[in-house]
Amino acid sequence: MKIAIAQLNYHIGNFDANFDKISTSILKAKELGADIVVFGELAVCGYPPRDFLEFKDFITRCIDVIEKIKAMSEGIAVVVGAPSINPDPEGKDLFNSAYFIADGRIIDVIHKTLLPTYDIFDEYRYFEPNRSWRTVNYGGKKIALSVCEDIWNIGNENPLYTTCPMDHLIMENPDLMINISASPFDYDHQKDRIEILKENCNRYNLPIVYVNHVGAQTEIIFDGSSFAMTSFGDVYDQMSSFKEEMKIYDLQDLQQKTAVDNFEDPGKISLIKDALVLGVKDYFGKLGFKKAILGLSGGIDSAVTLCIAAEALGKKNVTSVLMPSPYSSDHSISDSEKLLQNTGSPSHKISINSMYEVFLNELNPYFQDKALGVTEENIQARVRSVILMALSNKFGYILLNTSNKSEAAVGYGTLYGDMSGGLSVIGDVYKTEVFKLARHLNAQSEIIPENIIIKPPSAELKPDQKDTDSLPPYEELDPILFSYIEGRLGPKEIIALGYPEELVSRILKMVNINEYKRHQTAPVLRVSPKAFGMGRRMPIVGKYLS
Amino acid sequence: MKIAIAQLNYHIGNFDANFDKISTSILKAKELGADIVVFGELAVCGYPPRDFLEFKDFITRCIDVIEKIKAMSEGIAVVVGAPSINPDPEGKDLFNSAYFIADGRIIDVIHKTLLPTYDIFDEYRYFEPNRSWRTVNYGGKKIALSVCEDIWNIGNENPLYTTCPMDHLIMENPDLMINISASPFDYDHQKDRIEILKENCNRYNLPIVYVNHVGAQTEIIFDGSSFAMTSFGDVYDQMSSFKEEMKIYDLQDLQQKTAVDNFEDPGKISLIKDALVLGVKDYFGKLGFKKAILGLSGGIDSAVTLCIAAEALGKKNVTSVLMPSPYSSDHSISDSEKLLQNTGSPSHKISINSMYEVFLNELNPYFQDKALGVTEENIQARVRSVILMALSNKFGYILLNTSNKSEAAVGYGTLYGDMSGGLSVIGDVYKTEVFKLARHLNAQSEIIPENIIIKPPSAELKPDQKDTDSLPPYEELDPILFSYIEGRLGPKEIIALGYPEELVSRILKMVNINEYKRHQTAPVLRVSPKAFGMGRRMPIVGKYLS
Repeated sequence: MKIAIAQLNYHIGNFDANFDKISTSILKAKELGADIVVFGELAVCGYPPRDFLEFKDFITRCIDVIEKIKAMSEGIAVVVGAPSINPDPEGKDLFNSAYFIADGRIIDVIHKTLLPTYDIFDEYRYFEPNRSWRTVNYGGKKIALSVCEDIWNIGNENPLYTTCPMDHLIMENPDLMINISASPFDYDHQKDRIEILKENCNRYNLPIVYVNHVGAQTEIIFDGSSFAMTSFGDVYDQMSSFKEEMKIYDLQDLQQKTAVDNFEDPGKISLIKDALVLGVKDYFGKLGFKKAILGLSGGIDSAVTLCIAAEALGKKNVTSVLMPSPYSSDHSISDSEKLLQNTGSPSHKISINSMYEVFLNELNPYFQDKALGVTEENIQARVRSVILMALSNKFGYILLNTSNKSEAAVGYGTLYGDMSGGLSVIGDVYKTEVFKLARHLNAQSEIIPENIIIKPPSAELKPDQKDTDSLPPYEELDPILFSYIEGRLGPKEIIALGYPEELVSRILKMVNINEYKRHQTAPVLRVSPKAFGMGRRMPIVGKYLS
Repeated sequence: MKIAIAQLNYHIGNFDANFDKISTSILKAKELGADIVVFGELAVCGYPPRDFLEFKDFITRCIDVIEKIKAMSEGIAVVVGAPSINPDPEGKDLFNSAYFIADGRIIDVIHKTLLPTYDIFDEYRYFEPNRSWRTVNYGGKKIALSVCEDIWNIGNENPLYTTCPMDHLIMENPDLMINISASPFDYDHQKDRIEILKENCNRYNLPIVYVNHVGAQTEIIFDGSSFAMTSFGDVYDQMSSFKEEMKIYDLQDLQQKTAVDNFEDPGKISLIKDALVLGVKDYFGKLGFKKAILGLSGGIDSAVTLCIAAEALGKKNVTSVLMPSPYSSDHSISDSEKLLQNTGSPSHKISINSMYEVFLNELNPYFQDKALGVTEENIQARVRSVILMALSNKFGYILLNTSNKSEAAVGYGTLYGDMSGGLSVIGDVYKTEVFKLARHLNAQSEIIPENIIIKPPSAELKPDQKDTDSLPPYEELDPILFSYIEGRLGPKEIIALGYPEELVSRILKMVNINEYKRHQTAPVLRVSPKAFGMGRRMPIVGKYLS
């Protein structure tokens, strides 16, 4: 039995485009002699469709696509994810299902049991869990077909769910497992997947065909990296990361012991870079935009953002704007100009002095004898945002936000100023990792000038300002932020790791009182297991560690 | 048996303040001779605590409060909501529980079965559902104790859940029902509650004591309106809306047939007004702010926002800024000044001309021969935002956003311009309802000048501009928006209601392509069953009706 994996980049709600891709892949799989072609979870509508699932019209369109797939299934079986309607009046109205279609009819519809409802996932918001299990008989084989999370509740002393679907399916002595997923990227997640799949293969003594999405949906990036694993828990083959692909596997090969276990970890920083490039590319492509604009400050964050955007969109399609002020250092301009020479991308230089001054003049009667301070710093940042948004509006650019995760965490940024932008490119990358990204981008040849990497970080909003005037050094800040944000440790637990009490409570307070700022910022491309945005939901008004 | 309801305004994560309120109420209930005093769902930590529940430290602090309550429970029973730890390693780690505490010990801990996971609710994100049911024996009575949603799965042909906890509890022949809730306000919700409670009382032939929160938690407003209902399904008494209160009820009275059924509907617009006032008051109070600022345009939205804020914070604490441009009408200033005389609140007048011009000059080399358009309109709106935020930063005001739901829906607003602000006061109120709010605010005497109410809505960003240049009249727009947003109808269903196809698809497209703007705006005080914000989760990048 030959099984083709179609690893595709879907577009949420774009039923025509998704069906085009699916039907092209069905034809190709037939040509390749596949018996079965497998697509991802909720492939017909894209993942996550979020509250579109609450519209009957949206569900009807999903089911229309299933009908069209049915009509193409002569001589091949198609496994494809789509919502299905719960016939029981009790419970939620939908299931998250895998349709098994062959020879013009729906052979079976298998529903998802375990509905991830944590981090970025909201599946119990929409779907009723499955409560009965059966294999699918096809081509003389018994197939244990499951949807994503259903194979994840094993190998854990504190499992998230009270049931394990494969424990039911194994009673029917299946020949193989097929799992259709929409498993988002984070820099550790392929390792997690391989580990869980190994647990499954070893426990059930079965091979598995694991199909993932590729492509970005706003903040969520799917890396693909679909694979086939043998009954012995060896990775037989891993498909490409970050691009569409189709491959075909013979069940017999997956049932034999092979020495091959070809998983190779490209390393965290390389993965992050590739993910961000895809994230930018799909954000623009799927919204129908081609060109980006950003403010280039001479600092490392905007430099790295520029390089990633240039790789994603083409260097000519990313316009940088240099906006010096009286507080800008000479090197902020010269370093930026050197960088622009290296990238070969267009730029403008617009001094903010006249605009900054007219605001100060007009506000002077109200400010009177109040000392210069954060207000005036924010005015500079907001003037820059007005300029960038004006160019963006006039020429149809999308403004890229250049904030990193460390500053987003502690609120070291100006709302409606440097926190503006349609997409936050490196908002899930801590400052200490941004440096590593810069080094990685320079690996072949120096693109980001060395001085941008080595100079002390500064917002340059007042004379001789340094980030360390307001914040602890990033080498101290980032591990504490990581413990709190990714690790979800409380203050006592973080202090127990060896950090000073005063510093810990100062940082945690900064994170919590700045929730209101993050609430109003752009979607953040998610590359870590816990990014700001839809996967981290915090009260704005509260009084906890704040 | 005498049962006291403590209807309190909690503060999320503020364990000391919450315990202070709870302990004061316990003492007062003892004085009043209560046998039992009942608090709301998750009262010890406030509702919704959101992802704070993922921090062990947060749970420990909840349980510390329970210990302190235990120590106060000599001579009285206390029913109070808090998370509890699931002892079973399988499933989520927490339950959403009602603690029944008396005479220094925990008599029982009853877990919630039905976990609302829709709209603003995310309970399955955190909690394991209960799967076994028992009544609590106390003072010679059997009490069917439940948490919020657990009494809501009845009287519905398409129930959301597959179980009904009271159907289990009734087997033990209880004497009464107690339900502890955190049931958010919307303008229809007290009617829904009474209806569902009547269904319960009639079906089980039992009285119920229903305890709700009062107070706002960022966008979610709890109206209180707790009540006691007889075994015959009559409202015995309804407590105050929008304020804290304690009342005491005798079980015997609730078991007798009374003619009283005292629920009175104050009407939608009056409810919305009271809810918004509380929403503003608590947003500021719980964040520790006293003063607000807003841009006063001469239009109805900012006028209504000013009146609500002045009622919430005190007229001296709301500063209005008039920011005329070359396109401002004379009446925009004169109407605003008349309004300010009526409210007696402070104001500044700052012309934006000089700032607008310097941006146009500096950008002129780039814009060249491009026609004036939306870009220039946005610059005006953003200049105003820079001014308002500068004053806000300098003097510690919170900027109030004045956008209404109609314009937020169709994206008729400038990101980082008039869409700025820490809190959206009327962002869940359609424009046609804003007019009604204005009339309501004028009911006693004219505060909002008649001309503000009757003049055609205009953004005044170009000569002789009217909202109807870009949008259908609000009387046409709002019902279509309502069908799509609150009604979740698809285009065919809306057209079937009698609206023109072209208009419907134009409006739905505007709603969907502007998701990116709403993503970056302030929390919106929620007064309808479907507000923008945490209760409506839409993809930004997608292609559906767009």
